[in-house]
Amino acid sequence: MPLHIKVNQNIMEMEYAVRGPIPGRAAELKKQGRVIIPCNIGNPQALGQKPITFYRQVVSLVEDPSRNTDSVSDYVLDLSKDFLSKMESGLGAYTESNGPLFIRKAIAEFINKRDGFDSSSGASSNPDNIFITNGASEGAKYIIDLLIAGKTDGIMIPIPQYPLYSATIKKCGGVQVNYYPDEDNGWTFNRSILEEALNSVRKNGVTVKGIVVINPGNPTGAVLDEKTIREVIDFAKKNNIVIIADEVYQENVYNAKFVSFARVLGEEDVPLCSLHSVSKGFYGECGHRGGYLEVRNPPKVLGTDMSFTRIILKQASVCLCANTVGQLLTYLMVNSPEEGSDPYRQFIGEKQSILNELKDKAAMIREGFKQMDSVECFGRTGAMYLFPRLNKLPKGSTDFDYCMNLLENTGLCTVNGSGFGQKEGTHHLRIAFLPPKRLIEKVLPEWIKFHNEYVNRK
Amino acid sequence: MPLHIKVNQNIMEMEYAVRGPIPGRAAELKKQGRVIIPCNIGNPQALGQKPITFYRQVVSLVEDPSRNTDSVSDYVLDLSKDFLSKMESGLGAYTESNGPLFIRKAIAEFINKRDGFDSSSGASSNPDNIFITNGASEGAKYIIDLLIAGKTDGIMIPIPQYPLYSATIKKCGGVQVNYYPDEDNGWTFNRSILEEALNSVRKNGVTVKGIVVINPGNPTGAVLDEKTIREVIDFAKKNNIVIIADEVYQENVYNAKFVSFARVLGEEDVPLCSLHSVSKGFYGECGHRGGYLEVRNPPKVLGTDMSFTRIILKQASVCLCANTVGQLLTYLMVNSPEEGSDPYRQFIGEKQSILNELKDKAAMIREGFKQMDSVECFGRTGAMYLFPRLNKLPKGSTDFDYCMNLLENTGLCTVNGSGFGQKEGTHHLRIAFLPPKRLIEKVLPEWIKFHNEYVNRK
Repeated sequence: MPLHIKVNQNIMEMEYAVRGPIPGRAAELKKQGRVIIPCNIGNPQALGQKPITFYRQVVSLVEDPSRNTDSVSDYVLDLSKDFLSKMESGLGAYTESNGPLFIRKAIAEFINKRDGFDSSSGASSNPDNIFITNGASEGAKYIIDLLIAGKTDGIMIPIPQYPLYSATIKKCGGVQVNYYPDEDNGWTFNRSILEEALNSVRKNGVTVKGIVVINPGNPTGAVLDEKTIREVIDFAKKNNIVIIADEVYQENVYNAKFVSFARVLGEEDVPLCSLHSVSKGFYGECGHRGGYLEVRNPPKVLGTDMSFTRIILKQASVCLCANTVGQLLTYLMVNSPEEGSDPYRQFIGEKQSILNELKDKAAMIREGFKQMDSVECFGRTGAMYLFPRLNKLPKGSTDFDYCMNLLENTGLCTVNGSGFGQKEGTHHLRIAFLPPKRLIEKVLPEWIKFHNEYVNRK
Repeated sequence: MPLHIKVNQNIMEMEYAVRGPIPGRAAELKKQGRVIIPCNIGNPQALGQKPITFYRQVVSLVEDPSRNTDSVSDYVLDLSKDFLSKMESGLGAYTESNGPLFIRKAIAEFINKRDGFDSSSGASSNPDNIFITNGASEGAKYIIDLLIAGKTDGIMIPIPQYPLYSATIKKCGGVQVNYYPDEDNGWTFNRSILEEALNSVRKNGVTVKGIVVINPGNPTGAVLDEKTIREVIDFAKKNNIVIIADEVYQENVYNAKFVSFARVLGEEDVPLCSLHSVSKGFYGECGHRGGYLEVRNPPKVLGTDMSFTRIILKQASVCLCANTVGQLLTYLMVNSPEEGSDPYRQFIGEKQSILNELKDKAAMIREGFKQMDSVECFGRTGAMYLFPRLNKLPKGSTDFDYCMNLLENTGLCTVNGSGFGQKEGTHHLRIAFLPPKRLIEKVLPEWIKFHNEYVNRK
């Protein structure tokens, strides 16, 4: 008889819809030879987006410095040599667990420049509080795992949210505390929405330790303004809560301006953990798993002399270090080619073309929604996603059923809104607006046709 | 006043000596300009080991297929093209969370070939039960996290052990159950040693769910024979325990033959999770964080229809996938250049030279021990480590003091035995035998001098 065992209940119960049953079914259909359009996940290069040439030239050269360099520009050559001289043992050695200091310094300079901080200002980024990670997910896990000290510790997350957060909170045995941005007002929220969520769990003995804010939003795409960020900061300050700002889509704003939490925070003493990644933006280097976590105003830890960041370093050290190519790409992300340098023109051209195309594709799909019965899509466009509300569904059916049927009918793989959480009684789906235009042009009419038939089914 | 918070106690308490206070002090000394020889960790390329040329040629080309290929052999060119044709979206896209099927198939074929399994045999490796991971550490964490379902669940680990295991058990809130290989008999052990450890905790209500075996040993370097492996299997079978076989040093055997757990297990129905990595062996690609976990005979999970491996896949999916360059290197590790192919001769030459040098360096350091007062080193040489016992220390001092003083005096950074666990009353250190020979020749006399003065201090 095979061994029967009990396993960790938190892992059993955690859900991760972005890779759940619908993508699972899509994989089956693909095996059977069906054409699948994987819009379930923000994975640009899986949908034909080309890597930024400059990035790959540098990585290729750093991996094999002895290769033929005839076609390589002096700028790439010098930068690769400089990188290798600082990264003493090349890409093959473990680095410091938080990443080499020179990369963390470059990240700090990038943040200072982005947010207009003078390096002598109190708001200047501190490289000692930066951790280079395998994508942004790893940094989020470190913080949530550390903050949840017991079963009654909670983390506030927006609904809808990216399921990394709900899954990690569940996995760590803490309480998921939902707050509800106002969909009809473009997913905006304010302090009273946050206070309401906090008060609703405080009476049950839950201690809220952190609040997750995703800006630009995932799955909603909504872009926060400075006023909202200010309200989150005031809320966190008053209630002794650590802010976890997921800012991986900071380059993915199309009709608005990105404002970082760090910028609004300035010199104010509120703990902030912000995340960034090489997976999104115009780079889209998901597979390379690069990113960073920056901690500002780390809280004091009760019962120990160890600092908050020292404990994060200990977490990072157990798996030794983030992968070095992800680290190199993070370095390149914060270190774009200088204006006027050899690769500059091509780099900027590729960047603009990718961002413009994303903007156009989002607009195309939004136009399509207008031809679908009872579909509304709120908020400005940001990130890589649209999150339309399905106001009409056949009686008794759910957005899960809708997405599954959409997949079976058109090959379009999306994720049901319930996978991200949504206000009770509402139905949505998330679509990543990444497929090439010609594919959108082809599938959109099929989707519209499917939709209008499906929702009007008796 | 800054925020004061309570954090996860398990993370606070977990220890990871390999990156603990002694390496911390070494980093400080280095900043001050001292020459440090980092033997605290198996990080070959940090000590001058060159990457395998073939691996880097392929990675470089796959990262930038448009590069100049004048100096690239047809074999490398074809292999890179073939890889890219199978890895449809290149290195920039997320892969399946367990890794692409073609890489998992290649791993399964490697295991079958290594262990002499016919692909039609019941012992043949199943690609569906293989997970490509960021180094081997990640796989070990998945399994331990899954097995520990409550505070009274325990995992058996050898003492001394690699602190990934003690740290992860602590982090997951389980019980660390020690078993003690017999140092004076070359770190061998048998079933009665295992039964003793099990019985000592069973009476306290601890349920042992898994047993970790590190072969070749870390930190001891000891290589297990088939008979011992058989006893572990019988023990696990009788007591319903999952075997976690850390086999990352399988290429690092110098005077013995490596026998895998899978080979000895054959078709027998005992759950086995085995780990391998691109960080060790002759490849030493630590920074790239590649590796795999293979599960055999997955146990049934109580209270669910989900399979054990389906739940591991869910764990892997939360961070989306292992980094793709680590995946490519894992593919190359299990897919060496064919005999007679262009890169073959250079590949084999590099491999042999690295392994021979490791063997010589271990022998040099062992010779040095003979000139140190009351130092004994047991077991055959394996892995990348020697773990000598310090039978004489100044009264009241510990192996931690010894290693710290050794560092301050000679720049040699080792790890104290207590960082790995050791039988009470004994003292050790672990040294990675990786520095270039000329460096060993220089530092060894200094160490001998330091040692004989230090241990005879009044």
